[in-house]
Amino acid sequence: MGIKRLVLLVIVSCGLCWAQADDSHPAPTNIPGAEYPQIHPDLSATFRVRADQAQKVQLLMELGQSTYDMVKGEDGLWEVRTKPLLPGFHYYEVSVDGFASNDPGSRVFFAAMKEVSGLEVPSPESDFFAVKDVSHGTVRSQWYLSKTTGQLRRFFVYTPPGYDESTTRYPVLYLQHGAGEDEAGWSDQGHENFILDNLIASRKAKPMIIVNENGMTGVHLQPAPPQPASSRISAPIRQMMQDGFTLFDSVVSNDLIPFIDATFRTLPDREHRALAGLSLGGAQAVSIGLNHLDQFAYIGAFSPAIEISDTANDYHGRLANAARVNQQLRLLWIGIGSDDFLLEPVKKSHENLEKAGIKHVWVESSGAHVWTVWRKYLADFAPRLFR
Amino acid sequence: MGIKRLVLLVIVSCGLCWAQADDSHPAPTNIPGAEYPQIHPDLSATFRVRADQAQKVQLLMELGQSTYDMVKGEDGLWEVRTKPLLPGFHYYEVSVDGFASNDPGSRVFFAAMKEVSGLEVPSPESDFFAVKDVSHGTVRSQWYLSKTTGQLRRFFVYTPPGYDESTTRYPVLYLQHGAGEDEAGWSDQGHENFILDNLIASRKAKPMIIVNENGMTGVHLQPAPPQPASSRISAPIRQMMQDGFTLFDSVVSNDLIPFIDATFRTLPDREHRALAGLSLGGAQAVSIGLNHLDQFAYIGAFSPAIEISDTANDYHGRLANAARVNQQLRLLWIGIGSDDFLLEPVKKSHENLEKAGIKHVWVESSGAHVWTVWRKYLADFAPRLFR
Repeated sequence: MGIKRLVLLVIVSCGLCWAQADDSHPAPTNIPGAEYPQIHPDLSATFRVRADQAQKVQLLMELGQSTYDMVKGEDGLWEVRTKPLLPGFHYYEVSVDGFASNDPGSRVFFAAMKEVSGLEVPSPESDFFAVKDVSHGTVRSQWYLSKTTGQLRRFFVYTPPGYDESTTRYPVLYLQHGAGEDEAGWSDQGHENFILDNLIASRKAKPMIIVNENGMTGVHLQPAPPQPASSRISAPIRQMMQDGFTLFDSVVSNDLIPFIDATFRTLPDREHRALAGLSLGGAQAVSIGLNHLDQFAYIGAFSPAIEISDTANDYHGRLANAARVNQQLRLLWIGIGSDDFLLEPVKKSHENLEKAGIKHVWVESSGAHVWTVWRKYLADFAPRLFR
Repeated sequence: MGIKRLVLLVIVSCGLCWAQADDSHPAPTNIPGAEYPQIHPDLSATFRVRADQAQKVQLLMELGQSTYDMVKGEDGLWEVRTKPLLPGFHYYEVSVDGFASNDPGSRVFFAAMKEVSGLEVPSPESDFFAVKDVSHGTVRSQWYLSKTTGQLRRFFVYTPPGYDESTTRYPVLYLQHGAGEDEAGWSDQGHENFILDNLIASRKAKPMIIVNENGMTGVHLQPAPPQPASSRISAPIRQMMQDGFTLFDSVVSNDLIPFIDATFRTLPDREHRALAGLSLGGAQAVSIGLNHLDQFAYIGAFSPAIEISDTANDYHGRLANAARVNQQLRLLWIGIGSDDFLLEPVKKSHENLEKAGIKHVWVESSGAHVWTVWRKYLADFAPRLFR
C-alpha cells in the first residue's frame, strides 16, 4: 500500500454509492466497490475506463473474438455498452492505443498465459454454483516435490464439507484446466468448490476430493506453423494425442497421485479415482486416463481437444479392445457445446467410439468453448462418479 | 481459452528461450514463460510492453511513487531500465496514454483496491521465504457466515506441516493485511506459509495456525477532506484509533474466532491466540487486541497506522493501567522502517508507551512501507509467540 493511498484513507459509512437509474448493477466479478462494469437488465454490459490521452480504446471480449470501440464521454472516461451477453463467465481485455491489458474495475483470472479481466453475467442459471448457506468444503493450495520435473510444484485441493472432522476416506477427482490457464482455474473461474458444496448438500454427488495440478507442464503455446486452413484444428490436436503428454503424464501418475494418497484420506484405488479436464485438460484426461487404466476407472472430457478417427490405432491402440475398455472404464464422459469450434472433431470422436462399441456418455449441449459450459459439465459429471 | 489461442497450440520442447547476454533473468513474479521484466545483476530491472499506437508510456513504480518514461524501440516495443532496485517486493503499473493498468508479463497482486503488477527482486535476503524442500503447510481458502455482516465471507488459513496427520491442537495467529489489500495478501505477497514452513523446519517458531480475514470491512478508501499538510497523516490515523473498527472488531471477535475454534484443532484460549497486522491491519491489531484482552495475549503491529499520544485516554483508556496491561499482554510488538512515512507517529507511540511503562518489543528497521519489510517482521514476530 503506497504512501499516497494511505494519507487519503478515511473511514466512511458507504451505502450503495453506485446505485444506477436503470436497475443496472456492478458485476459479481467487479473489484469490491468498483462501479463499472455494469450489468443491465437485458444482460448487456457497460464498461468504463480512464485513458486521458488515448486515441483509440477498445473492449476485447472473449480474448478478442468480438471487439467494441469505446467512446470518450464528456467526463473524459471511455465507455461502451455491449449487446446483450450470454449469462455466465466472459474473459475480456481493454486495448488502449495497442496496449492490451486488464480493466482495473474487474478481478483477473489466469488465461492465455496472462492475467485477464473476467466478467460474470449472473442469471438464474448461476444458482448451481452460488455461494449458499450450506456446509462448505475448503480449497487448499499446497506444494510438493515432483521427481519428474525436479520442481516444487503447487496444486489445489478441494476437500468436501466434514473432511476435517471425520475419519472417512474419500474418492478423488483429478480435474484439469485448459491451455494457457493454471491450477487455480477450476476454483477461480470454475467454482468447483461451490458446485460440489451444493451437489453434496442436496445429496446429488458423493463427497469427494478434487485435485487440480498445472497441465501446462511440457506444453507451450506457440504460433502454429503455416498449414492449410482446413487442417488448422486437426493437426495440433492429432499431435497432442500422439505425444501423450509424456511429462505431465509422469507428474500425475508417478508423483501427484502417490503424494495425494499419502497426504489425504483417500480411497487409493482405481475404482475411487477419476480424471477429467476441459479442452487441453480434456485431451490430457483421455490420454493419461487410457494410459493408466490401472489408476483410473472414470474419465471426463469437457470440450476436449481430441479427434479420435481410428480407434484401432489412436492412443497407441489402447481403445482397440472395446470389450476390455468397457469392462475397465466405469465412465467415459464426453461433452461439447453446439457453438464450440471443436464440435466437429469431438462429434467425430463420439461417432467413432460408437462404431467401435466403446461405451460412453455423450452430451451435446448448447454453448461455446467457455467456462459457463464447463461448470455445467462438472455439475453433470460429478454426480455420476463413484456409484 | 479463446478459439484463436487454441488453434495456435503446438507442443514444443522449450528450453531457456529467454536467455540473455548479460546474465539478466526474468523476475520470479513473471508469468511462466514471460521474458520481461528482466532483473539485471545490479538489481536494476528492464520492463518491456507492446503499445503500438501509444504516444506516452510510463512505468509507475510503487503505485506511482517513482515514474519512468518508457521509450519505443526499433522493434516497436516500449522499454525502460530502472535504477538498481531494493531487493524484495515492488508493486508497479504501466500507464499508456493515461490508462494505468498491469503489465501482461507479471503476476498481479491485490493492492490499492485493484489488481496490480508485482515485481520480486530476488537476493540472498529472500532465503527466509524461499520454497524449500522442507515439510510444507497448506493455505486454505474457506467460507463462513458472519452474523455481524450477514455475509458469507472468505478467509485464508495456513495450517502447519503435519496438521492433517496429527491430533495436536495448535495456537492461532490472526494476521491482517493493509488498506486496499485483502485476505490473500499475506499468502500472495507475504509468503506467510513459506516463512512459517522454514521457521518451523528449523525449530525457530512453534507450529501454529495463521488466519487472514478481510480487514477492509467497514473501511473505505476515499479522498481525504482538505486539511493542513502537517495533519495529513495524523487526522485519519487518530480517527481510526477512536473509531475502533467497530464492524471488523465484531467480525473477528464474535464470528471469526468462534468459527475457527469450532472448525480447526486450536488451543482456544487467550494464551494461545495472537493478533497482528501491517499498516491498517496493525492499527486494527492494536485496537481490537486491546478491546479483547480476554481473547488475545499477543499483539503485533507492523508499520502500524497508529499515533499513541495520550496513554491515559487513547483506545478508550485501555492503556491507562500499565501494570494491568503488562500483566495481560505477553507480547506487544511494534516495528517500523526508518524510511516509512509513518515513522514519526509510530516512534512517538513507542516513546509514549515507554513513558507510561507499557512493556513492548520495539523494532526500528531499515526499509519503507513495503511487503519486503513486513515479511521480515513476521519472521521476527512469529518465533516470539506462544512461548
